[in-house]
Amino acid sequence: MAKQKPEQARTRSLDRRAFLKGSVAVVGSVATVAYPGVSQATNPENLPPHVPEWSQALGDGVDVTPYGQPSTYENTVVRRNVPWLTATPESSISFTPLADLQGIITPNGLHFCRHHAGVADINPEDHRLIIHGLVDRQLMFTMADIKRMPAVSRIHFVECAANGGMEWRGAQLEAVQFTHGMISCCEWTGVKMSTLLDEVGIKPAAKWLLAEGADAAGMTRSIPMHKALEDCIVVYAQNGEMLRPEQGYPLRLLVPGWEGNMSIKWLRRIEVGDQPWHTREETSKYTDLMPSGKARQFTWFQECNSVITSPSMEKSIDGKGFVEITGLAWTGQGKIKRVDVSVDGGKNWQSAQIDGPVLDKALTRFRMAWRWDGKPALLQSRAIDETGYVQPEFADLRRLRGEWSIYHNNSIHTWKINTGGDVENVQLS
Amino acid sequence: MAKQKPEQARTRSLDRRAFLKGSVAVVGSVATVAYPGVSQATNPENLPPHVPEWSQALGDGVDVTPYGQPSTYENTVVRRNVPWLTATPESSISFTPLADLQGIITPNGLHFCRHHAGVADINPEDHRLIIHGLVDRQLMFTMADIKRMPAVSRIHFVECAANGGMEWRGAQLEAVQFTHGMISCCEWTGVKMSTLLDEVGIKPAAKWLLAEGADAAGMTRSIPMHKALEDCIVVYAQNGEMLRPEQGYPLRLLVPGWEGNMSIKWLRRIEVGDQPWHTREETSKYTDLMPSGKARQFTWFQECNSVITSPSMEKSIDGKGFVEITGLAWTGQGKIKRVDVSVDGGKNWQSAQIDGPVLDKALTRFRMAWRWDGKPALLQSRAIDETGYVQPEFADLRRLRGEWSIYHNNSIHTWKINTGGDVENVQLS
Repeated sequence: MAKQKPEQARTRSLDRRAFLKGSVAVVGSVATVAYPGVSQATNPENLPPHVPEWSQALGDGVDVTPYGQPSTYENTVVRRNVPWLTATPESSISFTPLADLQGIITPNGLHFCRHHAGVADINPEDHRLIIHGLVDRQLMFTMADIKRMPAVSRIHFVECAANGGMEWRGAQLEAVQFTHGMISCCEWTGVKMSTLLDEVGIKPAAKWLLAEGADAAGMTRSIPMHKALEDCIVVYAQNGEMLRPEQGYPLRLLVPGWEGNMSIKWLRRIEVGDQPWHTREETSKYTDLMPSGKARQFTWFQECNSVITSPSMEKSIDGKGFVEITGLAWTGQGKIKRVDVSVDGGKNWQSAQIDGPVLDKALTRFRMAWRWDGKPALLQSRAIDETGYVQPEFADLRRLRGEWSIYHNNSIHTWKINTGGDVENVQLS
Repeated sequence: MAKQKPEQARTRSLDRRAFLKGSVAVVGSVATVAYPGVSQATNPENLPPHVPEWSQALGDGVDVTPYGQPSTYENTVVRRNVPWLTATPESSISFTPLADLQGIITPNGLHFCRHHAGVADINPEDHRLIIHGLVDRQLMFTMADIKRMPAVSRIHFVECAANGGMEWRGAQLEAVQFTHGMISCCEWTGVKMSTLLDEVGIKPAAKWLLAEGADAAGMTRSIPMHKALEDCIVVYAQNGEMLRPEQGYPLRLLVPGWEGNMSIKWLRRIEVGDQPWHTREETSKYTDLMPSGKARQFTWFQECNSVITSPSMEKSIDGKGFVEITGLAWTGQGKIKRVDVSVDGGKNWQSAQIDGPVLDKALTRFRMAWRWDGKPALLQSRAIDETGYVQPEFADLRRLRGEWSIYHNNSIHTWKINTGGDVENVQLS
């Protein structure tokens, strides 16, 4: 694999226009255009053009739209489930439509959701958070108490540990919404766990927390104290407004960069202890069965990963010419350092441009200019994080982990572009 | 006014807990708590407490919620208008509920809106953008063309030039939603104007652009070429998803940091010329009548400004003790460098903590710990941007500008805290 420094990539990117210009057909009579695939950009015969209907009459008059909604023309940009993964309506997964999303922020209405006992309907006036166990003073907080305490706002992704898990089992699902759509990224606001733990006072023996949800599933996970103190937040808001019901309204735990399942929704109880609890969600679930027959436990980090969101199965290519390859990269270990893209199944790599802020444990948007010649191609992305960790190939990960895993598949993903521009989900062996 | 370096502020902030701890009442039998105002945080008598109703039954079972909505308990967090500012339903302003928002991202449903001829209903398949005038080749773009071109994503605020204008005229409106709610901040995605101008090729004489909207108001503004090339974006997405109808779906211009009115919605036409057009929106409107009787024209920048969003008229203080003063700062000139807060009407100032990323022409969240003694107080914030510009006092701005302005009131704002903890909007003379 050809490696390349980011500085080199930058130079190449700046030369992109020259590269493209050298190879395009002339449109119009004067000069060349940089983006030959943009074939409908034609020389309009009459200017100004005839005035469209909607410019000739007043639009809908509204004194005020109290809470706005997407355009009706966008009603296919929605969360979706995979029927065979939905045990019952009370135990369901809805996937974020990554192919239609831009930038790094997921709008609240499209954040992926997973619930185990339906969506709890909680009046915030009645909600309480209790902190007890190895503490100097056990305390019970109302929502008003929590909202009066010092807050922080952080942009972080939340990802289900099973994201990509179906690929591991050989199901090549037909949309990036399903292959990778159990990840979303919002700005979260709440009280640092360290602030709450200061308030109750933790005893010297305290090494672990148990976080418990108020839904009927009573979801519980053990969190090591060092993580709790480092960056965990008890959040009540996402993207500025209060949490959505399916995201744990009115209060959830956020464990940045770790398995989404640990970010307990409808948070009602934190117990402080000296050892982990070995709950269902960290024994029979959320462990990784290795080739030896033993299972790895407490594999908390969401490893460095990436996926191309366009082109993708939902975003085929409409004819030869300029194509911007774009996608998302992320790591539970900090910040993304670099993303490489290949169009030949990993033989050659170029560093992509990083667009927008690169934030700790947040989605990072990458882009790369490409000129498609109409021939079959194999598109891949490979992320590298600030620890130096490189996203692995599927074969390498399988060699290490065997075939029995469900969680933590962060292997390099491949989209095959066919001659017609349509896209297939393939697994390179 | 006592000035202070950010480093000093940081030290003070870190000492905050010690400061608070020294002055609090003992709660429970063991030790002190840091946040004495959080008085409902009591020692629970029985733990674990009785299991609430919503933990004992399955919640709403849904296979999938295609597009999520806020909790019904949050139905007062909505955009609102000021009836006397709403000429007709087709010409209306809706204000963002800043007091209830956290962080820096405004959720799309709550972005302020201003429309002059209703909300245009445009099928994106039928929409076209035309670029003509002093260009090498006039071009007409479909939405598919635009979406195929190289994109960028940027977090920027949009602010109406009239934000705060009613205060200038002496109307002390009874909510931060109305005093400052014509500002919002999203992650926008689209094609750089410079990319589009490269594609059409601009002639040497080209110095200005005219941007025209497709709504029946035919909104038009002149944009100087240097700004167009610097950072203007023709955007189709906000916070990841496609623009909302009231934000110009399917295409709007974004002119970062400048009067919101210039970010033409429902963008249909860009004309390239050698001088400004002097449209209605830059002659009879969006000019500033000075004491001399002459009007300033083309006062594009939204100057450095800030406001405390809590406490505020909507967020009174519930009893003495710990209060986190928090708010938003922004500048059309780049990044926020520092925010100072006063609790005595500007006699003394402390630098606030900046929370979260500080981005170019984006909202910036600030926070300051305060211990309220129950006595009347005058809360103010004062932002300083990276150019060194300091947000002015109202009296200073009035001395310069006279009394006839409507736009560009970025003066320091005052909330008066009364003994009961309720908040008044006052203008210090």
